[in-house]
Amino acid sequence: MKINSHLYAVILAGGSGTRFWPLSRELYPKQLLRILGDQTLIQQTLRRTLSCVPTSRTFVVTNRSQVDMVTMQLGGWERGIQENIVVEPEGRNTAPAIAMAAIKLVVQDPAAVMLVLPADHVIKGTRKFTEAVKLGTKFAGDGHLVTLGIRPTAPETGYGYIKPNMRQQLEGQGTLKGYRVRRFIEKPDVPKARTMLRSGGYLWNSGIFLWKASSILDELALYQPRLLRVIRKVWRLQNNDAGLSDNVIKIYGQLPSMPIDTAVMEQTSKAVVVPVDFVWSDIGSWSALGDVASKTKAGNVVNGNIVDLGSENSVLFGNHRLVATIGLKDMVIVDTPDATLVCPKSRAQDVKGVVDILKKRNAREQLEHQSVFRPWGSYTTLDAGDGYKVKRLTVRPGAKLSLQRHRKRREHWVVVRGKAKVTCGDQRLELTIGQSLDIPKAINHRIENPWPETLEIIEVQHGPYLGEDDIVRLQDMYGREIRS
Amino acid sequence: MKINSHLYAVILAGGSGTRFWPLSRELYPKQLLRILGDQTLIQQTLRRTLSCVPTSRTFVVTNRSQVDMVTMQLGGWERGIQENIVVEPEGRNTAPAIAMAAIKLVVQDPAAVMLVLPADHVIKGTRKFTEAVKLGTKFAGDGHLVTLGIRPTAPETGYGYIKPNMRQQLEGQGTLKGYRVRRFIEKPDVPKARTMLRSGGYLWNSGIFLWKASSILDELALYQPRLLRVIRKVWRLQNNDAGLSDNVIKIYGQLPSMPIDTAVMEQTSKAVVVPVDFVWSDIGSWSALGDVASKTKAGNVVNGNIVDLGSENSVLFGNHRLVATIGLKDMVIVDTPDATLVCPKSRAQDVKGVVDILKKRNAREQLEHQSVFRPWGSYTTLDAGDGYKVKRLTVRPGAKLSLQRHRKRREHWVVVRGKAKVTCGDQRLELTIGQSLDIPKAINHRIENPWPETLEIIEVQHGPYLGEDDIVRLQDMYGREIRS
Repeated sequence: MKINSHLYAVILAGGSGTRFWPLSRELYPKQLLRILGDQTLIQQTLRRTLSCVPTSRTFVVTNRSQVDMVTMQLGGWERGIQENIVVEPEGRNTAPAIAMAAIKLVVQDPAAVMLVLPADHVIKGTRKFTEAVKLGTKFAGDGHLVTLGIRPTAPETGYGYIKPNMRQQLEGQGTLKGYRVRRFIEKPDVPKARTMLRSGGYLWNSGIFLWKASSILDELALYQPRLLRVIRKVWRLQNNDAGLSDNVIKIYGQLPSMPIDTAVMEQTSKAVVVPVDFVWSDIGSWSALGDVASKTKAGNVVNGNIVDLGSENSVLFGNHRLVATIGLKDMVIVDTPDATLVCPKSRAQDVKGVVDILKKRNAREQLEHQSVFRPWGSYTTLDAGDGYKVKRLTVRPGAKLSLQRHRKRREHWVVVRGKAKVTCGDQRLELTIGQSLDIPKAINHRIENPWPETLEIIEVQHGPYLGEDDIVRLQDMYGREIRS
Repeated sequence: MKINSHLYAVILAGGSGTRFWPLSRELYPKQLLRILGDQTLIQQTLRRTLSCVPTSRTFVVTNRSQVDMVTMQLGGWERGIQENIVVEPEGRNTAPAIAMAAIKLVVQDPAAVMLVLPADHVIKGTRKFTEAVKLGTKFAGDGHLVTLGIRPTAPETGYGYIKPNMRQQLEGQGTLKGYRVRRFIEKPDVPKARTMLRSGGYLWNSGIFLWKASSILDELALYQPRLLRVIRKVWRLQNNDAGLSDNVIKIYGQLPSMPIDTAVMEQTSKAVVVPVDFVWSDIGSWSALGDVASKTKAGNVVNGNIVDLGSENSVLFGNHRLVATIGLKDMVIVDTPDATLVCPKSRAQDVKGVVDILKKRNAREQLEHQSVFRPWGSYTTLDAGDGYKVKRLTVRPGAKLSLQRHRKRREHWVVVRGKAKVTCGDQRLELTIGQSLDIPKAINHRIENPWPETLEIIEVQHGPYLGEDDIVRLQDMYGREIRS
């Protein structure tokens, strides 16, 4: 029951992977990263909402390209959160995602109150967060559209600001109060940000909202009738077809990308802000990480295999590979197995420019990591040459790859850890460490790991074409597309 | 015949891999690097000496850990320079190496003149170099100990300086002259370097020498009698035992590390300097590379897969991996498959400190690269996990690995390029692309590539111990140590 039996959490997990490149990639955005603590940002977000709402009332909105990873990180296949994951055909910013979730909730519970929050923010102070949600839930129940406002600590130009109407205070709880919103201010320039910071009368717009599902649908009907019509249509089609039909994908693709702030909040008369005092950051760039992560005496954020001589105030973010740094000041170094970023903190926002260049070049390093996650585990490309590719497949206990075949390549497997249950044509066999098997072209095959130890296989592929799309799936336990 | 039929080139190829880390490693020092142009520094040095001296009169002094690589880079196994490679048990700076070469030469040709030069310098202007060597050879023939002096262009603190006695000029050729040396000045501090630069009366000590083998032996007998005695003893032992016996290694290990400059040149009365005007650098650090390499308009030295936005005057040295740089100024970035260095140019000398730390940690990244060269080709470690390792072996046309076996590991081979001739116990077989073979523990095996195409094999090793030293060599075509 927790705060209120009509309260539902809606985690928006559709972010793109631009600003934290090369640790984030298009198919592996910020919310999936473990950049602060042991859990990824979306895992931390889920943990946070679970202090307010049980799993059964927690929904996650994400898009097709991220659904596998999001499900996996939230423990989906084991813990059954899978039914609560709402899949958009593709990301269209927050307004369509929120509309879709609101429709789903209002059908389920006409009195539903939604706690909407991005999956990739950092918040420190779960108790304070819970209290703010509690008060916000009360206001939301009264028909207000509530946003949580953060007291500014710096003249940030990356955030929107909110001016509360201090004369229109709502009844609060303890030191927490609510105010009607006088107006929303879009991301300012530095002088304007400084003025607002100095005046003390402004708050950062956290992007964390509370409202009744019916309230936000009313406001969407008022201010974005076309958007709402399209989303209702998508909802009906999805319920009929039980999935993302080509029609749904087409309709969705024509929607404008629209944040809920401009779609509704800046126009509605029902906006209320609750100024909160937990530590919050949307960590919008590598340099922002320095504001929330723990630091060495010299002011460095250090992660991974770094050998440093006398650097200061820098973000030194590596992993297994060795990175040596000497005498850096206010720099950002991010190292991943296949790409490294080096820039001054002051230019960290410009990583977007690098990502744009890579995108134009169709560079794989923009799209995905050297290790790619799948519902059954992951694969890592170890080597690729003319006509061959070497991968390490890591198969989780209990997992099963799809029954598949390839048109253009043959494969050779060597088990290096655990034990594999293998289908190859009509054969069914078990391979233990050191044993190997040839998979000829066009033969149906499958790897399973029904045992409790992780299975690792070195796969050597041969053929004139070795792309990931040369795969004919015949059966899949994760509901992935079947082509035959 | 070229300049003089008694002229011999002695290339000193014993440098350590500290200052160009991570591109250089302890077992892969600067002279082996391709940092300027298509050839490595030692290859460029050989090409330069070949303009003065034929191959048959070119000797290379190196040490045990580098002899395979040096031989390979100089085309040894094909072109027969192998007999001209003089192997020290380990590097002991230039004096012992020069003494060893001088003894060898004086035995062969009592009138031998030695052109001594380090393998890892950059010189631009082969014609001017040849002219200087010609004049130096003449002076050397007259009994002088000749050094080539470089006109300073900056207040360098990394070089030794020479003050020529302008009143004791030797007969020259054209604009080239020789002068008796008034004195040698050790590496100065900045003010002293500035003063010498301004005065115009000083030269940089290039470390390139010409003298009769008998002259340098006479001077060594005079100033370093103990050193010479030890080297003569080593020489006799090596000739008797035909190689590096444990005794030789022990004796050599007790020698002090001594440069010829302090051992002889600073003490002798026979020193002569020839001021030359070719472009010269010992490229003593990554920042020095900027002085000799070609640069972009923005002043960057760029190599490899770099995506840059607006950096200036920086060394951006990568290879296959993607490195993205934004807005750097006067920085050095060096990227290799397993280690990356980032530092300001002004701190490039401090890479030595990083190497020291790595050495203390026994970090593999200090010692060798992820790809390791062998006489038959190279291997690259692609992956390593608990109880297994994956390598790619690249076998040159005509090459043959040793006949060997392992005590602790079994291996599994998959051919991915070319064709392999394989011995495994009593079997002899050929493997083509996609074919695989298990090599059980303790079974003698060998890979050969008698064909003109390069052979590539993916090797998956299994076992409780996978170190390189678990190898029993039974036959080897490259004369490497046989253990049985």
